[in-house]
Amino acid sequence: MLTSERLRHPALLDKVVTADKAAALIGDGMTVGVSGFTPSGYPKMVAKALAAAVRAGRKCRVNIWSGASVGPEIEEELAAAGAVARRAPYYAASNKSTRDAINSGDIRYTDVHLSHFAQQIDYGFLGPVDVAIVEAVAVTADGGLVLGPGVGNTPMLVKHAATVIVEVNTAQPLELEGMHDIFIQPRPPRRREIPIYGTLDRIGSPYVACGLERIACIVESDIPDKVRNLEPPDELSEKIAANLIGFLEHEQRRGRIPPEMLPLQSGVGSIANAVLAGLAKAPFENLHMYSEILQDSVFALIDAGKVVAASGCAFTPSPGVLERFRRDPALYRRAVVLRPLDISNHPEVIRRLGVIALNTPLEFDVYGHANSTHVMGTRMMNGIGGSGDYMRNGYLTVFTAESVAKDGAISRIVPMVSHCDHTEHDAMVFITEQGVADVRGLCPRERARVIIANCAHPDYREPLLAYVRAAERGGGHTPHDLERVFGFHVSYNRTGTMKNQQRGPTNG
Amino acid sequence: MLTSERLRHPALLDKVVTADKAAALIGDGMTVGVSGFTPSGYPKMVAKALAAAVRAGRKCRVNIWSGASVGPEIEEELAAAGAVARRAPYYAASNKSTRDAINSGDIRYTDVHLSHFAQQIDYGFLGPVDVAIVEAVAVTADGGLVLGPGVGNTPMLVKHAATVIVEVNTAQPLELEGMHDIFIQPRPPRRREIPIYGTLDRIGSPYVACGLERIACIVESDIPDKVRNLEPPDELSEKIAANLIGFLEHEQRRGRIPPEMLPLQSGVGSIANAVLAGLAKAPFENLHMYSEILQDSVFALIDAGKVVAASGCAFTPSPGVLERFRRDPALYRRAVVLRPLDISNHPEVIRRLGVIALNTPLEFDVYGHANSTHVMGTRMMNGIGGSGDYMRNGYLTVFTAESVAKDGAISRIVPMVSHCDHTEHDAMVFITEQGVADVRGLCPRERARVIIANCAHPDYREPLLAYVRAAERGGGHTPHDLERVFGFHVSYNRTGTMKNQQRGPTNG
Repeated sequence: MLTSERLRHPALLDKVVTADKAAALIGDGMTVGVSGFTPSGYPKMVAKALAAAVRAGRKCRVNIWSGASVGPEIEEELAAAGAVARRAPYYAASNKSTRDAINSGDIRYTDVHLSHFAQQIDYGFLGPVDVAIVEAVAVTADGGLVLGPGVGNTPMLVKHAATVIVEVNTAQPLELEGMHDIFIQPRPPRRREIPIYGTLDRIGSPYVACGLERIACIVESDIPDKVRNLEPPDELSEKIAANLIGFLEHEQRRGRIPPEMLPLQSGVGSIANAVLAGLAKAPFENLHMYSEILQDSVFALIDAGKVVAASGCAFTPSPGVLERFRRDPALYRRAVVLRPLDISNHPEVIRRLGVIALNTPLEFDVYGHANSTHVMGTRMMNGIGGSGDYMRNGYLTVFTAESVAKDGAISRIVPMVSHCDHTEHDAMVFITEQGVADVRGLCPRERARVIIANCAHPDYREPLLAYVRAAERGGGHTPHDLERVFGFHVSYNRTGTMKNQQRGPTNG
Repeated sequence: MLTSERLRHPALLDKVVTADKAAALIGDGMTVGVSGFTPSGYPKMVAKALAAAVRAGRKCRVNIWSGASVGPEIEEELAAAGAVARRAPYYAASNKSTRDAINSGDIRYTDVHLSHFAQQIDYGFLGPVDVAIVEAVAVTADGGLVLGPGVGNTPMLVKHAATVIVEVNTAQPLELEGMHDIFIQPRPPRRREIPIYGTLDRIGSPYVACGLERIACIVESDIPDKVRNLEPPDELSEKIAANLIGFLEHEQRRGRIPPEMLPLQSGVGSIANAVLAGLAKAPFENLHMYSEILQDSVFALIDAGKVVAASGCAFTPSPGVLERFRRDPALYRRAVVLRPLDISNHPEVIRRLGVIALNTPLEFDVYGHANSTHVMGTRMMNGIGGSGDYMRNGYLTVFTAESVAKDGAISRIVPMVSHCDHTEHDAMVFITEQGVADVRGLCPRERARVIIANCAHPDYREPLLAYVRAAERGGGHTPHDLERVFGFHVSYNRTGTMKNQQRGPTNG
């Protein structure tokens, strides 16, 4: 029930409607902004109602703008109903309906650096926001929206929305209030600095200023977020984590990382988890995270006293961690700030704080380009997300990956990436379970040898070296044989393994 | 003669030595930082002396770190003597000796985003700076170096140099003094904001603080910079410029660029010149430039009263413009600030000011990736320079190019770039003489059609569309056929034109 703890002005009670009624405000062709980031803090009731209406015959296809990919009510139900025309700025592999529709072209997906999206909305580059649906923990007496655990692009979506629908979700703990720091920059030419000088600096408001009059209606919700438990790290991930941590220690001993350490950014996934788990045992203290998303592993580090400050645009607790938060909210509230996505990922702040960026691509090439998004160059796996924001602006930028995938059928180190999301100019260090390739200050020919020797799986070292040596006969700063450059990928597409690139087709 | 106007402390006179003596301080294997940016403000005497010594049999190969590629005394004489082992962070096509050595692998060249290089030196990532050779206009009484027209990375190189050699060049006008604004950020975690909120804001000192005791010796010079006159725009470049200016006017009318306009960044070359020349006739007033390099065309706009404020890391006047500056230094001094490269190109400032970025790649692809550096993916033409700094952080980011090169034998629009320096996530608009492709908010399949229809040369539209249509049969978010993706390039390599890609080899 929506008590006065959740709705803090009597007029708000009059705005409560059914999800069906709220969904009826969404018209065909509209652009709908949704709160949340990953399956965390996103609206569920109205999406379900709209999906049901469309399944029942209502004609309605909308453009969905979010922070990141959100939960199944939108990515599965709404997408499977055929109700999604366009999607931006991020998509992650976990939801089949959206993924398949993106890859068939049925959903027109735009993949954007996450620090860019909010300002592109603000500049008017992407058109109007017709409706914003915001999951809130509570609404303040003056119409401020207390967000759930995922901020994402909600502040900018609310700023521009013609119609604001609020889902007040009683399954979200009220203790989230006060963890957010909502700040919207003015547009150029009237911008000043973003005055964040330390991980926990607060520069904004604890809620999204919306105003009572702009709230079109309120829907009650009690559907929990669909946050999955993380798998425990496997042996390979632990090896990669150990290589990374050894490298960071080495850099600190050499004076290239200051003694107090620098804030860390970590992508998501099994390697990121292993890295964060590894940090619990590493000789670093009082760690800071200035990152995009804070998953369970960060909270384990806060519990262990290793991480004392964490900034992100979303806090995605699994049910177990959420329960711990409810019991002792002070622990995390003290150590965590949740910011809008364009601030958590802002080049200005990342570069100023000296964030060490740790991300995992799908593949990288011998010269140092990386592919974060497309399987075999064509099929969208995950969007680029924030990786570009951090890898371009970090103090030290590291890509970690397993050297092979699919039981060795795929080498993650290839002659040329089949899709380029990060150029040779961006990543400084590549780490696999095989070792560490530090390419700072090296020319392409040197990089190729260092990456192959230290990162490639032994099964692929010789074919990769053979490629580079043959290409070098053609000369050039970055030797390549464009007739054979995708031999690894073509071999995989034709034979199911990259191992036939020698005797298989040769692109010419 | 070095008068007290140029050397403002008596102790400095005692430091004056011959160029040969100064060159003797440079040992084999050392890293030598040089002042300047493009053939502007770089040291000449010591480079010539070192080249002569090496030609005469002295064994000395050094690493040269600069702002950008500099003049022939270094890029030709020193390189041709075999005295350059490594080169960073930029190289431009104009000097044959360095270019050939980079492409043969004899000079190990590292191509770096120009906003990154100074801080990578400061972080200790690239090793020590053994010697800095700085061309100065004058040395102040407390050992401050008044730079010439190119700042580049000089402040950071001087900060770290074990030995500082100063060339005081009487061919550089003393009126340059006061145009520089030298600012070095502290390292993380002690960084604050860069307090630049407007194009002409000054935040530092007019000279590089070095100190009398750190100046090892001084060499007198009177060799002028080797700045070339720019060619007048040709018809094609004027067409591209007209398309760009029309687009900017359109954006302003639509309210997507504010009425007061925003600062412009412009790359170099014939198209950039045509664009700047076109601005003289366009209905924009009180323009600001927040750019990397300020060439003659910017000064023509200052003369015409169109540009009222220009910030760059170098002012590269041709002899004629330099003469005008000598006659009326106040005109340019009022309107120009010269900054260190990492400040002129800093993501924080570019994004805050809302810089509109205009750059020209070698080729771009149907999905929006761009190649700024490598001819046919292998041979270095120009380094990436600052293009990535501006294209990633600009308010509005535009690539301009001619649709074809070499009398139509090369299409600058290709299925996939042969080297990726800028990803699909970075550029918003592509402009050729054929038209304007605005890809904001579009998915890859849409982008391909818009780019082909609006940018590609009519001779290549059908082959490009045929490629895309065929690739789409394989599905995927970004359709590609990796067996045929470089068909255009392979055709050129084999037959001297991209036009045989249909009947020529098909990569499979």
